[in-house]
Amino acid sequence: MTTIHAYAAHKPGGLLEPFTYEAGELGPEEVEVNVEYCGICHSDLSMLNNDWEITEYPFVPGHEVIGTVAAIGSKVATVKPGQRVGIGWIGETCGTCQYCRTGDPNLCSSATPVVMRPHGGFANQVRAHQNWVIPIPAALASEGVSPLLCGGATVFNAIVQCGVKSTDHVGVIGLGGLGHMAVAFLAAWGCEVTVFSSSSHKASQAKALGAAHFFDSRDSAALANLADSLDFILSTVNVNLPWNDYLAALSKKGRLHFAGVAPPLNDISVFELLMGQKTLGSSPDANPFTITQMLGFACQHHIQADVEVWPIAQVNAAITKLKTEKPAGRIVLAL
Amino acid sequence: MTTIHAYAAHKPGGLLEPFTYEAGELGPEEVEVNVEYCGICHSDLSMLNNDWEITEYPFVPGHEVIGTVAAIGSKVATVKPGQRVGIGWIGETCGTCQYCRTGDPNLCSSATPVVMRPHGGFANQVRAHQNWVIPIPAALASEGVSPLLCGGATVFNAIVQCGVKSTDHVGVIGLGGLGHMAVAFLAAWGCEVTVFSSSSHKASQAKALGAAHFFDSRDSAALANLADSLDFILSTVNVNLPWNDYLAALSKKGRLHFAGVAPPLNDISVFELLMGQKTLGSSPDANPFTITQMLGFACQHHIQADVEVWPIAQVNAAITKLKTEKPAGRIVLAL
Repeated sequence: MTTIHAYAAHKPGGLLEPFTYEAGELGPEEVEVNVEYCGICHSDLSMLNNDWEITEYPFVPGHEVIGTVAAIGSKVATVKPGQRVGIGWIGETCGTCQYCRTGDPNLCSSATPVVMRPHGGFANQVRAHQNWVIPIPAALASEGVSPLLCGGATVFNAIVQCGVKSTDHVGVIGLGGLGHMAVAFLAAWGCEVTVFSSSSHKASQAKALGAAHFFDSRDSAALANLADSLDFILSTVNVNLPWNDYLAALSKKGRLHFAGVAPPLNDISVFELLMGQKTLGSSPDANPFTITQMLGFACQHHIQADVEVWPIAQVNAAITKLKTEKPAGRIVLAL
Repeated sequence: MTTIHAYAAHKPGGLLEPFTYEAGELGPEEVEVNVEYCGICHSDLSMLNNDWEITEYPFVPGHEVIGTVAAIGSKVATVKPGQRVGIGWIGETCGTCQYCRTGDPNLCSSATPVVMRPHGGFANQVRAHQNWVIPIPAALASEGVSPLLCGGATVFNAIVQCGVKSTDHVGVIGLGGLGHMAVAFLAAWGCEVTVFSSSSHKASQAKALGAAHFFDSRDSAALANLADSLDFILSTVNVNLPWNDYLAALSKKGRLHFAGVAPPLNDISVFELLMGQKTLGSSPDANPFTITQMLGFACQHHIQADVEVWPIAQVNAAITKLKTEKPAGRIVLAL
C-alpha cells in the first residue's frame, strides 16, 4: 500500500490540481518508481483533453519518467531498488500475444499506457510492469534523458523501423520537441539532414544539432528543387502540409513517415507514389529493446534533449507555454 | 526503313483509324517485332484520352505485345530473329542513371513508354530497345501471356517489391484485368487470398483462381470482422473505397498497396497508420528481370490471363467494351 501524491485534472481540459490516491499492493511483476523528472509530451495534452475519447478522470498525465526504483514486486528480475530507471508511454503489455512474443511488444493491442494503470508520472511515485521499466546509463543527465523515453523513442524507433541507412539523405519536418531529437539522432546516424520548419529563427539551432540544410516547410519552390533527392522524410508536425510536394522530394523507393499523431491526410497522389515506388507510413513508440539501444546511442554520441525544467507546482503554466508557444526543445517537470 | 501499319487516334478520345508510318532505320540496339497479339490496358485508354497530358497525336496504343523478332540492330545481343518475345509498358530507359545501373531500370526517370518511341503495338510491327524485349517461354500460349507483359507484371512486381511471404494472409481489391492475375499469382505464392469486389457474381471466379474468401468491397461490417488479419492488401481498382476500413483490416506492420493509377486518397488516418505501424504505397511496372521471373513462375504454376480475343479491325468496339462493361478478364487484340 502506497499513498501517491499526484496532479490530476477532473474533467476534459481541466487544470491540474493536487490529487492523492492509494496505489494498493504492489503486484509481483510491478516496479514502483520515485519520480525525479517527468517530461510533458503532446500526447499528455491530447489525453488531458480526451481527444482520443479514452481518458478517465481524475486523470494524471506524465509518461516520460526518470527516477529511482522505490520498491519491486516479488517476481521482478529486471531492476533493483535504488537503481535509476525510466518509463515511457507504455506501462504494461499482455505478454502473450503474437507481437509481445515476437519482439514487437510495443504493437500489443492490449498495451496499457502508464497514465491509465491507473495514473501517470506527474506524481511523486508511479508504477509500471518490470518489462517497461528501463535502466538508464550513468552518463545521461536525468533532465535531458527524460524526453527520450517517449518523444525520443518515437523518432528513434521510426529511424530503426524504416531501415534508414547512414548514407541516406533525409528530411525532418518540424524542429520542436520531437524534431530536434530526430535531427540529433539522424546526424549521429551519419545521414545528411535537411530540416523543414515554419520557424525561420530555428535555422541556427538546426545547424547546431547537425543539420546540413534548412528550408521553410511551406516553401514549394525549395521543395521542387529537392525533387527525387531525399531517401526518408520524417514529419514531426501536427498540421497538414503540401504532402505531394514532399512525396516528390523523395527519391525512388523513398519513405514519408509520420512520428506522432497528425491530422488525416488528404489529396495524396497515388500517381506520385506509383511512379517512384514511394511509401507513406507511421509507427508508434519503441519496444524496450529499441529504447535501450537508443540510450546507448545517446551516450555514445552525447545526445540529450534540449529541455527547460519547471517545478511541478507550476505545471499548469508549463502546459500553457507548451500549448501557446512553440518551444524549441522539451519541457520537463521536476518532482 | 520499315513501313508500319497501325491504328491511331488523331485527337484525345478519338476513334482508332488505320495509320501508316515510316519507322526509319533500325537503331543498333533496337529490336523490331512482328506483332501477333496485343492486350488492351487501362493505361492505353488514359493515354488515348490524354489524361496524363503527355500524349502526342497521332497516337498508337498498345504495350502488351507478343510476337516474333523481325529484325535486330547491329549490337543486339539479347534476342534473335524469329524468336518469340514480349514487350510491356517501357520501350527504353537511359541505361546510365542510378536506377538503370542498380537493378531498378523500371524506375528510370527518363523511361520512354513503348507507345511514345514513337508508336505502340496496335500495329503489325513495333520496336523497342533490346533490354526491354523479353523472351517468352515456349509453354505459355501467346494470347494468355500477352496481358502479363504489363498488367501481370504490375501486380507481380507489387508482390515482389512488398516482400509478400508465402505464409501471409492477403487481400486483393477488384477482380478485373489486374485483380484476377493478382489472385492467381498470390494463390500460387502460397498465400491465403481474400478477394474484395463490388461484383458479387465474380465470387465463383475468385474461388476458381485460388481465393479462399470473397467479400463485397464496400461491406464495412465484413471489413470490421477482418480487423488486424491481413498482412498485405493489393488494390487494383480505380475508385475510392473506405481506405481506413482497409487499413484497419491490416495486421500490424501490414501494407496497403495500389497497383495501377487510382484517384487521390482522402481522409487517410495517421492514427491508424501509427498504431499498427502500417504503410501505404504503390509501385510501377516491373524491371525486365522481374518480368522474366514472373514468366517462369507462370509456367511453373500454369498461370495465364483470362482473355477474350478480338480482331484488330474491331479495336474500337473492343475499347468500348472495356470502358462500359467490367470484363472479368483481359481483352487481347489479334493482329
